[in-house]
Amino acid sequence: MAVGPGMPADLASVRGVRLGVTAAGIRKTDHDDLILMELPPGSRTAAVFTRNGLRAAPVWVAQEHLLAGQPRLLVINTGSANAATGDAGMQTARAVCAAAAELAELNPAEVLPFSTGVIGEPLPLAPFEAGLPACYEDLKADAENWWHAAEAIRTTDTRSKAASRTVALDGEPVTVTGIAKGSGMIHPNMATMLAFVTTDAAVAEEPLQAILATATEATFNRISVDGDTSTNDALTLSATGAAGTDPIHSATDPRLPALREAVTGVCRDLALAIVRDGEGATRLLTIGVTGAADAGEAVRVAQAIARSPLVKTAAFAGDPNWGRILAAAGSALKGEVDWSRVDLHLGEVRVVRGGVVDPTYTEVAGAAAMAPEEVAVTLELGRGDAADWIWTCDLSYEYVTINAEYRS
Amino acid sequence: MAVGPGMPADLASVRGVRLGVTAAGIRKTDHDDLILMELPPGSRTAAVFTRNGLRAAPVWVAQEHLLAGQPRLLVINTGSANAATGDAGMQTARAVCAAAAELAELNPAEVLPFSTGVIGEPLPLAPFEAGLPACYEDLKADAENWWHAAEAIRTTDTRSKAASRTVALDGEPVTVTGIAKGSGMIHPNMATMLAFVTTDAAVAEEPLQAILATATEATFNRISVDGDTSTNDALTLSATGAAGTDPIHSATDPRLPALREAVTGVCRDLALAIVRDGEGATRLLTIGVTGAADAGEAVRVAQAIARSPLVKTAAFAGDPNWGRILAAAGSALKGEVDWSRVDLHLGEVRVVRGGVVDPTYTEVAGAAAMAPEEVAVTLELGRGDAADWIWTCDLSYEYVTINAEYRS
Repeated sequence: MAVGPGMPADLASVRGVRLGVTAAGIRKTDHDDLILMELPPGSRTAAVFTRNGLRAAPVWVAQEHLLAGQPRLLVINTGSANAATGDAGMQTARAVCAAAAELAELNPAEVLPFSTGVIGEPLPLAPFEAGLPACYEDLKADAENWWHAAEAIRTTDTRSKAASRTVALDGEPVTVTGIAKGSGMIHPNMATMLAFVTTDAAVAEEPLQAILATATEATFNRISVDGDTSTNDALTLSATGAAGTDPIHSATDPRLPALREAVTGVCRDLALAIVRDGEGATRLLTIGVTGAADAGEAVRVAQAIARSPLVKTAAFAGDPNWGRILAAAGSALKGEVDWSRVDLHLGEVRVVRGGVVDPTYTEVAGAAAMAPEEVAVTLELGRGDAADWIWTCDLSYEYVTINAEYRS
Repeated sequence: MAVGPGMPADLASVRGVRLGVTAAGIRKTDHDDLILMELPPGSRTAAVFTRNGLRAAPVWVAQEHLLAGQPRLLVINTGSANAATGDAGMQTARAVCAAAAELAELNPAEVLPFSTGVIGEPLPLAPFEAGLPACYEDLKADAENWWHAAEAIRTTDTRSKAASRTVALDGEPVTVTGIAKGSGMIHPNMATMLAFVTTDAAVAEEPLQAILATATEATFNRISVDGDTSTNDALTLSATGAAGTDPIHSATDPRLPALREAVTGVCRDLALAIVRDGEGATRLLTIGVTGAADAGEAVRVAQAIARSPLVKTAAFAGDPNWGRILAAAGSALKGEVDWSRVDLHLGEVRVVRGGVVDPTYTEVAGAAAMAPEEVAVTLELGRGDAADWIWTCDLSYEYVTINAEYRS
């Protein structure tokens, strides 16, 4: 199951970036599971990683290598997350980087490893040693290999996820293209969300990290209720400079907002694609909270609603069960609450006015408001000026099927 | 679905307490939905209520009345929670108390109201006015009416929940008996958990509240991952003094620990009965965390595991998916974590040793450990001396069925 349209067909390649894909047989032998992304010399890469206390070996190694210098090659595998694998897992992650570096005549610290798949199983090195040469041979700059890569990093994803934007910097068009994988939402499943975004603009490290931080807050950090629960979450933003535009050296560069908007747009497309393809998803909910006392309260209330199994099962049924929404909000509100200031809309339908059911509300109108595949739930708290939102999906039988049966 | 044995048949009535039940037709007309619990003069009652920011009208009124004096009559209804009902709901709750008080020739402040059922729908007064006289006529002290009451307060509960203990104070036997309702667990469903425990011991208000607070911490607060999410949660402990034992006046009374143990035993039976009858439950999990840095971390980690949909769906499948357990724990751990000190047991089977899969572990042994209806999951963190636990249940198709279809 998945909600809404699939990804657009008009994916643009990014000058300077080459991608290669192969079936290395890391866990299964019948599909592509190994991806290389090559960046040209002079590229800059920013990254954000999971904040889970259990970080996978590749996350540690990638963070280490990013401190040592700028990456030239990303190695991405599915099948095993290489998480909770101890010293052996660290050694494998380093050995994968070394093997890829040898092929490309790079320093191992110029290679970043990324893994996704089952937690706790050892990641075997042999499939990498066998598969990396073919993957390296496959490196191509065209959009078709972007699609191959987007397909290869899927695990329980039912759809490939990719997005592009083009933006003019000083009149010169630059491209932003990214791919992502991720299908769990409530707690990201397995291990878990990976996204790789690139641009051919030239951007220095500091403004690149600033762009990524801003884009992440408004996109990926708005879909994952438990943003820090995965062991392998990673998002990179690489700038190759191959468009030939003058480098953006600082966060105050007047061209930065346009590029940031393009990056945010790609990240938003990818983040929404993850929710729409959420495990078992049949409905996309935008949980908006307005009139909160402060920013923390706004996002806390939105998350409490978004993670409530009662709200999510009601959404699956198309049930306008507003009592559950208010109760979930109440669980996240501290101190005295003046409910006579609270309004709730499902889509355009005002369901609650002043803390009680709106006198003009009917169950028929509520059911109609919940019927679409995409529904906006908007809660006005009347406590202040802060607002925030979370994108989430419903909780269906299929979610239980996927997660009760995945390993068997 | 429900896990393990039902409640014991040997329920003891409590001297001084009378119960009455009737079908008042509050929401449906085919079953008992109104209960009176009468306490003799001189009784003392302690209570704890939901900490949800959206507290139902009866919770407000009960708290108000408890401040005004000691209750003599509890009025409990199913069908409607009288939550998110604004001023009208408050008026109805007060009117219910007034109607009951008139019958029993009491002050309205001597009556406590309790409601459970759907949130947001108005609670009609007429069924109370019509049904209270028959309910009052039905008041009896025998154990049979305790069972009638336990049956009448059910909503989605598939089982009645009641428990008794007898304990000697100064050689005199006193009884502790309680009833409860509640079937949701993750977020308590509808609205939600009600429990009424009584004893014929004589206990002053202060030590009674101390007994209740201690018992609650170790029982009801260990089953509800989101202990504060319901709008109507209430637990009362009433002491009638009808056993004729000397009153317990202070928390240092040497007889208090024995009575506290009996109350805790009744509360534990009722709390576990709620988890075993959790919506769609097929498996009871005791999530134990040891070696935590401090008490807060211990319970936070246990709750993170207990509320993880991935852990709960794996438990439904009997899948020893230990990677999900570690990832959920990791989401709740702050700062540096030395995973080489972490061990995990499923039942008696050591699955993880030093942060990685135990070399002697097999999937067959793990599956066998997960097979029973009741499984202990024990995570040693190696960070300190604190320990805690949470009782929870699995997440099954039936959970989705119940919550996606309840209102329709």
